Formats: sequence, structure tokens, C-alpha cells
Amino acid sequence: MVSIALLPGDGIGGEVMAATVPVLDTLVQRHRLPLDYRVLPWPATEWHRQHGSMMPDDAIDQLLDYDALLLGALGDPGPLDQPDRYRLPDSVSLAPLLTLRKSLNLWACERPARYYPGVPCYLSDPRARELDMLVIRENSEGEYAGQGGRLRAGTEDEIATQLEVFTYAATERLIRHAFERARQRARERRDEKRMRAFTGPGGEPRESQVCLITKRNAQAFWGELYDRVFQQVATEYADVATHHELVDAAAMKFVQCPWRFDVVVASNLHGDILTDLAAVLAGGLGVAPSANINPADASVPALFEPTHGSAPDIAGRNLADPRATLFSLALLLEWLGQRSGATADTKNSNEKNRLFSSAGHQLHETLIADLAAGHPASGTDAVG
Amino acid sequence: MVSIALLPGDGIGGEVMAATVPVLDTLVQRHRLPLDYRVLPWPATEWHRQHGSMMPDDAIDQLLDYDALLLGALGDPGPLDQPDRYRLPDSVSLAPLLTLRKSLNLWACERPARYYPGVPCYLSDPRARELDMLVIRENSEGEYAGQGGRLRAGTEDEIATQLEVFTYAATERLIRHAFERARQRARERRDEKRMRAFTGPGGEPRESQVCLITKRNAQAFWGELYDRVFQQVATEYADVATHHELVDAAAMKFVQCPWRFDVVVASNLHGDILTDLAAVLAGGLGVAPSANINPADASVPALFEPTHGSAPDIAGRNLADPRATLFSLALLLEWLGQRSGATADTKNSNEKNRLFSSAGHQLHETLIADLAAGHPASGTDAVG
Ligand SMILES: CC(C)[C@H](C(=O)O)[C@@H](O)C(=O)O
Ligand SMILES: CC(C)[C@H](C(=O)O)[C@@H](O)C(=O)O
Repeated sequence: MVSIALLPGDGIGGEVMAATVPVLDTLVQRHRLPLDYRVLPWPATEWHRQHGSMMPDDAIDQLLDYDALLLGALGDPGPLDQPDRYRLPDSVSLAPLLTLRKSLNLWACERPARYYPGVPCYLSDPRARELDMLVIRENSEGEYAGQGGRLRAGTEDEIATQLEVFTYAATERLIRHAFERARQRARERRDEKRMRAFTGPGGEPRESQVCLITKRNAQAFWGELYDRVFQQVATEYADVATHHELVDAAAMKFVQCPWRFDVVVASNLHGDILTDLAAVLAGGLGVAPSANINPADASVPALFEPTHGSAPDIAGRNLADPRATLFSLALLLEWLGQRSGATADTKNSNEKNRLFSSAGHQLHETLIADLAAGHPASGTDAVG
Repeated sequence: MVSIALLPGDGIGGEVMAATVPVLDTLVQRHRLPLDYRVLPWPATEWHRQHGSMMPDDAIDQLLDYDALLLGALGDPGPLDQPDRYRLPDSVSLAPLLTLRKSLNLWACERPARYYPGVPCYLSDPRARELDMLVIRENSEGEYAGQGGRLRAGTEDEIATQLEVFTYAATERLIRHAFERARQRARERRDEKRMRAFTGPGGEPRESQVCLITKRNAQAFWGELYDRVFQQVATEYADVATHHELVDAAAMKFVQCPWRFDVVVASNLHGDILTDLAAVLAGGLGVAPSANINPADASVPALFEPTHGSAPDIAGRNLADPRATLFSLALLLEWLGQRSGATADTKNSNEKNRLFSSAGHQLHETLIADLAAGHPASGTDAVG
């Protein structure tokens, strides 16, 4: 039996999860999925109100018992006109997200951005509808290392520091994973007969591309590390085209010519910004899913979540679009289907994989058809 | 006599500067500007080839003799098909830009983004044409502090660090300047009868707004410093509305609703990314100017530059759009006009100010009219 944990969290998290549970029930029945799930009341601001922390001390241990996790959203400052509301600073209420990613060693965050008919298109160029990129974000270190502090805090002599830490090991596995995914995407496109053309170093055609993002002209130390590792790993993937963009130029080109990108690999902060940008180009946060995974270890539960936040301004008004969570559930099922069988019984495990893959695939297709048919979400685009 | 230095630099820098000089000559004559200028052969990659460094040792001292500086672009890796070309890594060829900003203490970088008819509009929503924002970027510290290093560089145990450093003093002056500019913009709009409406803390109308950008939910140390200083300075500007966005959400909202922003104030790296994004929303780098200034000390020469880079891929082919440099020249002249008179002779100085202001204003109006008339630039949109 595969078991997953549903973590509604705060704000609209509860609403989007409530809309997701019946869909999951239907899929389990229809595809006879060997899956059970449990809804957990943490991490959440409400849990904090009752217990003084966002989640139990043994939360990570408990979560390790599941095969995958689906999170709604975190953060609940409450509507501004309810001054008595229990409030936590973002740095407290959102901390579990970063703790989960780090403690479970989910070192890659994948955010596919593809334009589907029926969602708003913010760009005027019709080619923007060809958008089909996968941004892979470093999820374990870099600008989010959390080191630093405030000297003479609160005074007029305050100095705040924040240390960015980048290691060879984390950089190498990330970049290698990006090349693997580029290859895999080329294979899938070949199967679906929708090949794309990129250019290799000597002008030869390539079916996929990895674009590295840095700010090496102003942050040279880690820029040089990323550059070196990228060039080194690329030699093993001669079938994949390579490219580099500075993060500022990338933000610009995402708007000017998003259809030129395939796989994009970026640091934690750069990836954070570029994935939000990619999400909006794909129609907004109402449909943007994300996956936090450990590609090297299938036994670690992956964490899936909509890219949107808890949107306290619209929470409780049934306006939230649950589709980003449903797209995330589709990714979760597909991920379960692709996981190399952890059991000894390979035949059984292959069969199981097939079930999950097809359930995920079907949910994905249904969501796309639904968008194309112009079915309204249960609410407006959830911006959080 | 006011004297300015023109620094063509590398790549298309020479071309855009060559197109700018005759415009400057005309303005000097037509408006009888008490101005002379000198074209300097550095900083430049060619200077490096001859002298082993991007600029002379006493460059900063020499530049301090001028009232303002206009830079073309830096960086010249050369076209990829010219392997013998003298090449410098970006970290060397672009270093003078950061050195100039830091050594001249030009701690604020201003990048106005306004949509003018005649330039490409990348967004589909017609309201995107109402875009009129000023992004003010911290220019002296933060993520560009340049501290850190590479431990065990080149090995599989490498650790690269980059230290972000934020001080109260630099934060306070930056945020105060943002509020000053918001007020000034409100005054100008009132004069031109094109007022805008923002919302104060209790829902009351405000004519201008400052939006603070941080990533305080993941980089809490400096996020808390920025927050604190912002709230404190805001109390002195009750006539200006305030707002906060996380940098990832800001990138998204720049695309979704750019017309909602007025003055945006951001750290060095966040500002770098958001100004490129704002530039593209205003029609691309071909028309995006920027000003590096020291608002507290009018005796320091300000540095004006197009936001685009040296665009080595199109350099030497007469394809570069000089308009970003011309818009930068307009900003330079307007800045000379607004500088509080450094001379004892106030009357004379007021008259001088008026001349520069009106020359800058006229150049700006001409450029806008030129765009609206659909006059081609001397080339395509310079993307560097
Ligand atoms: C060239 C580079 C160091 C520079 C920066 O990041 O400041 C540029 O992108 C800019 O925005 O002026
Ligand atoms: C909530 C925040 C810490 C988080 C991040 O920056 O990683 C969010 O923006 C995201 O992208 O998942």
C-alpha cells in the first residue's frame, strides 16, 4: 500500500485541499489505486496557536512514514481588519516549508510551466502560447542557507548579514538532474511527435536544452562554481544543447521569448523568482504546480504543493482556484508511477507504477480539457 | 562651465555613443548650454589590451573632475567565431561599473520605466500601456558586497560563499530617497494634471506610493532591517502610500498589473532583476535609461548609462538602438538642471539650471515623439 499525507496548512490551503480530496477519492476508486491517505492538522498556524509550534517535534519522523506529501499553503497573517486574529510573522509560519525541504533532503524543486488554452495569457506575442519549460530550482542551500545575523540590531549602526553557501556536491547533483530531465523531455516529445529544435555548440541540431542561470558578473564566487560544474557535466550530455543567461537577462527573456526555453536550472533565490515569473506566463498561480523531490533517493517522500501561497486576503471566501493543487496531485501520482519499485516484487511494482502513472496522466488531461472548455475554477486566480 | 565625460566602453557602447555625440552638440548650441565634454578611451577592453587594466590607476580621481558621466556599455567577449579576439571574463570587464558605483559612492540607481507609444508592448492587457514606475535600486552593498570566496576551489569538495551585507545607514538613505522621489513624482503629476490614486493605511486616497521589495520570508536577517527602516521612515511621509511585495510576487505582479506600481525600492540584486523586467515592460532595453546617483551630494558626478549591455553579438553591425543612451542623456541633463547650485552665485546658477532642465526635457519629448512617429532606430532593439 502506498500512503500519502495531505497537509492543508493555512489560509486557502484548507479550501484547495477540500476540493482535492473528492478528486483523489474518485481516482483511487476508478484506477483501483493501492493508496490511502491521511489529512494532517499541521504544519499550520492553528496548530501553533494550540501547541506553540507549527508542527510536532517528531513531524519529520512521522512524515518519513509516507510515500509522498501534498501541501496546501502556509502563512496566515489574517485579514487586516481582524486585529485580534492570532498572527505569526512569515518567518515563523513559512519556516516548515523550508524545514521540510531541508530535513527531507528534497534538494530539487521542479516547476513545469506550460501554457494551456483557457487560462489568461499575459503576453501579446502568440508564440507565448508555445511556452513549455521546466524550471529546476536548487532547494537545499545557496541564498537560503539561513546563516548570518543582525549586529547592533534595532540601532542606527545595525549591520545585517546573510551568507550564501554553495557546495560542489549540491551543485553537481542539481545540474546533472537538469540534464537527465532534458533528455527525458526530449524522449517524451519524440513519443508524442512534437519535437523541438535547439542548437548545439557547432550549430548542430539538438532536441533539448539546459539553460544555466547565474549572476556571475556580480557574484563571481558561486558563479564560477556553477559555471565549472555546468561545463563539466555537459560533456557527458552531448545530445543536449547548453545555454547560459544572467538572471536579470533571463527575467527579461522570459517575457520577450519564453518559447525559447526548455529546461532552466537556477539557484534557490533565482529559481524562486524565475518560477513565479514562469508561472504567470503559464497563466498564473491558479494553475502552477510544484514538486520538491530527491531525485537520487526514491524512498524519501516527495513534497508537492501549488506555487501559490495561503492568500489570506481571499481565504474563507471560496474564491481560491484549486487547480494548482490538482495539477500538483497529478504530478504526485506521476511521480509515484515513475519511482523505481522499492519492493522486491518487481512485477507487482511495475503494475503498481502503471496504475499511478495512468491515474496522474488522466487527471492532468482532465484538467487541461477542463481549462480548454472554459469551466470556471471554484474561484478566481489564487494569488498568494 | 559644466563638464561631462563620455565613456563609450565596449561593444555597441561605441556605436550608441557615436550616435549620441551629434545630438549633444546640437543641444549645446541650440540651448546655449555652458557645457563641454570629453570622450575617454576607458574603461574598455581595448584599454585593457594595451595597459593591462580596464582603466588607469587614477581613474576615479580623474572622473571626480567632471560634473556627470555618460557610459555606453562594458564587456567584450567578442563574437564566438573570432577565437583570436582578446577576451576578458565578465568579472574583469564589467568590474569598472561596480567600481565606479562604489568608489564614487553613487548609492542609488534609478530606472524609470514608462510605456511610450511606438515601442513593442509585450503584455496583452491594454492597461500595461499605463505603466509609469520608477525602480530605485540600492547600489552600494547588499548582495554585491563582493565578500566571500571559494574554499577547495576546483575540487569536488568546493564550497563557495558570498556574503550579503546590509547596513542601517545605506538602507535608511535609500528608503528616504524613495519617499522623496514619490512626493516629487506626485507634484509633477499634479502639475501635469495626470494624478494617480493609491490607498493609505486606513483606506484614504494617496497620490503616490512606495513599494518595498524584500524576501523576508526566506532571508529574514536583512528583511527585518529593511522592514524596520521602511516603517520608521514612512511615518515621516504620511502623504505617501506604502506597500510591500516579496521579490518573487513582485516579478509576477510586474507582468500581471504593472500599472499598479509607482516607486519601487529594492536591494541591489532584487533591483537588478526587477529593473530589467520593468525595462522590458516599457518596451525593451533599446529604450531603457538608468541613473546612478548620490542624492545626498550634488558634487559627486552622477553616472548615466543605458540599461542594456555591450551586446557583443550585434556589435560592429550598426544594429544597436542608441535611444536608451539618448534617454540616459536626457536624464543627465535633467539631473544637471535639478542639482542645487554648487556655485555661490545663486542667480547665475538658477539660470544655468533652467537651461539644462529645458534641454533635457526637450530631448526627452523629442525622443517620445520620434517613437510615436514610428521612426526606426538606427538598428534593432539592443539586447545585451
Ligand atoms: C553588469 C552587471 C554587473 C550590472 C548589475 O548587475 O548591476 C548590470 O546588470 C546592471 O544592471 O547595470
Ligand atoms: C514561502 C517561501 C519561503 C517560498 C520560497 O521562497 O521558497 C515560496 O516563495 C516558494 O517559492 O515556494
